[in-house]
Amino acid sequence: MTSLFSPPGSSLGHDPSLSHRRAQATVTLTGADGAPLAGRDVLVRQRDHAFGFGCIGFELIDWINGRSQDEAADAEFAQRWTALFNKATLPFYWGQFEPVRGEPKTAELLAAAHWFKDRGVGVKGHPLLWHTLTAPWLRGMEVEEIDRALRARIRRDVQDFAGVIDTWDAINEVVIMPVFTAEPNGVTTLAREKGRIAMMRLAFEEARAANPNITLLLNDFDMSTAYECLIEAALEAGIQIDRLGLQSHMHQGAWGEEKTLTVLERFSRYNIPIHFTETTILSGTPVPEHISDLNDWQVSAEQWPSTEEGEARQAEEVEAHYRRLLGHPAVESLTYWGLPDKGMWLNAPGGLLRRDGSPKPAYDRLHELIKGEWWTPETPLRTDESGSLNLEGFLGGYEVELDGVTAEFHLDAPGAVHLELRVPQD
Amino acid sequence: MTSLFSPPGSSLGHDPSLSHRRAQATVTLTGADGAPLAGRDVLVRQRDHAFGFGCIGFELIDWINGRSQDEAADAEFAQRWTALFNKATLPFYWGQFEPVRGEPKTAELLAAAHWFKDRGVGVKGHPLLWHTLTAPWLRGMEVEEIDRALRARIRRDVQDFAGVIDTWDAINEVVIMPVFTAEPNGVTTLAREKGRIAMMRLAFEEARAANPNITLLLNDFDMSTAYECLIEAALEAGIQIDRLGLQSHMHQGAWGEEKTLTVLERFSRYNIPIHFTETTILSGTPVPEHISDLNDWQVSAEQWPSTEEGEARQAEEVEAHYRRLLGHPAVESLTYWGLPDKGMWLNAPGGLLRRDGSPKPAYDRLHELIKGEWWTPETPLRTDESGSLNLEGFLGGYEVELDGVTAEFHLDAPGAVHLELRVPQD
Repeated sequence: MTSLFSPPGSSLGHDPSLSHRRAQATVTLTGADGAPLAGRDVLVRQRDHAFGFGCIGFELIDWINGRSQDEAADAEFAQRWTALFNKATLPFYWGQFEPVRGEPKTAELLAAAHWFKDRGVGVKGHPLLWHTLTAPWLRGMEVEEIDRALRARIRRDVQDFAGVIDTWDAINEVVIMPVFTAEPNGVTTLAREKGRIAMMRLAFEEARAANPNITLLLNDFDMSTAYECLIEAALEAGIQIDRLGLQSHMHQGAWGEEKTLTVLERFSRYNIPIHFTETTILSGTPVPEHISDLNDWQVSAEQWPSTEEGEARQAEEVEAHYRRLLGHPAVESLTYWGLPDKGMWLNAPGGLLRRDGSPKPAYDRLHELIKGEWWTPETPLRTDESGSLNLEGFLGGYEVELDGVTAEFHLDAPGAVHLELRVPQD
Repeated sequence: MTSLFSPPGSSLGHDPSLSHRRAQATVTLTGADGAPLAGRDVLVRQRDHAFGFGCIGFELIDWINGRSQDEAADAEFAQRWTALFNKATLPFYWGQFEPVRGEPKTAELLAAAHWFKDRGVGVKGHPLLWHTLTAPWLRGMEVEEIDRALRARIRRDVQDFAGVIDTWDAINEVVIMPVFTAEPNGVTTLAREKGRIAMMRLAFEEARAANPNITLLLNDFDMSTAYECLIEAALEAGIQIDRLGLQSHMHQGAWGEEKTLTVLERFSRYNIPIHFTETTILSGTPVPEHISDLNDWQVSAEQWPSTEEGEARQAEEVEAHYRRLLGHPAVESLTYWGLPDKGMWLNAPGGLLRRDGSPKPAYDRLHELIKGEWWTPETPLRTDESGSLNLEGFLGGYEVELDGVTAEFHLDAPGAVHLELRVPQD
């Protein structure tokens, strides 16, 4: 009996010790002549995390493009952003990106993407295909014309951004795509007629044809069996899902341990690396349970404040969520859905910064984890008689500095590793 | 852009007038010599419905096999059963059908199937593959051994019953099959490892190979997008779903018009004829909404009575449900999940007969519809000068009687039709 996927062995389970995120490295330093640099004082420091600590970068686009309303505030915000994150998600909602057909905002998104890339931040485009916020001018078209327009859009944008953005949410929320009723739109019209698999195939195949080096995600908020069935359908259709995107907007209360571990266990069965693509955890009152579509929760920012109690709880929940996700070896990245409360979806107090820009406890807590507990700061070490030094650290990029000269190395795989590093010296 | 299915045109919508269930026939009677039988008095009567009015026949098995505890009551029950229904579902829960490996209850199920068939009742076997009530002796087997055992069981039973039972629920409740946790079982073990598509393929392909004339259903209770995704996965996998089975147990309250029409609209998109395979409508208190798995609702029959008010409501809801389902052209049959309250799943008062065997109002209401409003009783007619008579009736089997001789005809398609019928005479 053949299977579409190979479930990982039982060893690939949750491990709160995070041993799968750490390496125990012995690094032997040699000089330009290949001789060991014994008994030398060096500085070692981490440069980056292998794990993707992501955030949306939507709020920075205007500032990057010289349209700041408050230069000082935006510059401070940018500093807070880059102090924490190494992955950015940029918005390609079609209706906003190309409200007038033929006039896409390519230049300003390219500028934004370059800004992040120049700072060592990987960029993902979100999304290539979605029924919500899609181009309004699709409405009224025949299905085959919609089909052609979608394909052309995907090809164009993937090509225009190749080399800067090589990771995309190929298609978003396919589970409800054909039965989405909140807003008539051309994408749903096509999906209703052709079915979910044809829509996934369209997005993945057009995108990959336009950029063979692309990394493509299937992304959904539906954590039920529906998403499992959809994934199995995609696999059966031969659609190559490079990464599996799971949303975790928690506007109706934090998931908690049981739900999180169940979701991880169920979706890791497909042996596709998992990205938690959209996480929101509130520092205010949760949306009542009876609201089934969050978009129905219409309140002003003033009616939905960030509270002291809420901020304390948020910090706890943020930490617990990050620890749980890092605890599962299948998870490669976690993207928080918005650093500031200002301008947040639904006016929710779900940011890590208050509306005045000051950090909530969750921001500081996260900083203590990402750049503290899980980070190797600049550390003085001395090589032994064989030129070696021992280092235990989180997977990621490192550098060693010796007499003002630096050399880089990476810890790529967990466990014990022995590296040789040549440090060119004057 | 290719699609896995062709959605029916917008004309295939809901039509409460049931015009798609009726034909306006002109039947020209001729004698043995081919000459029109003009000006003759005849009797016309309906013999059967094209629509499948089904019910489970579980309660009749013991009686048919000579194991009645109360012959008079059972005979009366059988009479009430056959007075209403033309399709029977028989139980093939593996754990009950073959509790000891190698000792299947083939003989007694064959006897039961023949009993129905002899009375013009079509029989369906339920189900060939399901995680609940499966063979307990699968537990502890290696997955490949489970796989072989499932295949062998399906082939054997399909072959043993071919010609008597040619319609089967191939596989039941695949949506939750790999993540079913209520009871460890071998089927879930295999499904978890191989995925849903491999399980569907196994069931459908083994069954069809064993009986090429078979009609196979995919059956589920999950009316969410999950079932849609699963169906699309099956279609992508090339699995031939002959009929789509939708359960509609309403232990937590009747679906009502909006839900029913939405379900019909969504699942008719696949252009596969729909069978409502399992309908229950209570004449007592509904199970509270917070109970997510009905099996958790453990009460005795005495704690869950059929009430006068409940029976009046049940009759209304049963009538409304039948009218709605017949109102949609995609629906081919509707099987009620249990005629008597006695022995009903969960001790629910969901039968059409009370525990003492007397009919509830819903039974009488259904009888008035199936054998009244939707039925052509024996009707005297006179052929005109061309030997023709006009008849409007529900699709199904009919007979015309002339001077003690009968001839049969069928109304197969809705709308106007002209038939010629030879009535051999002495």
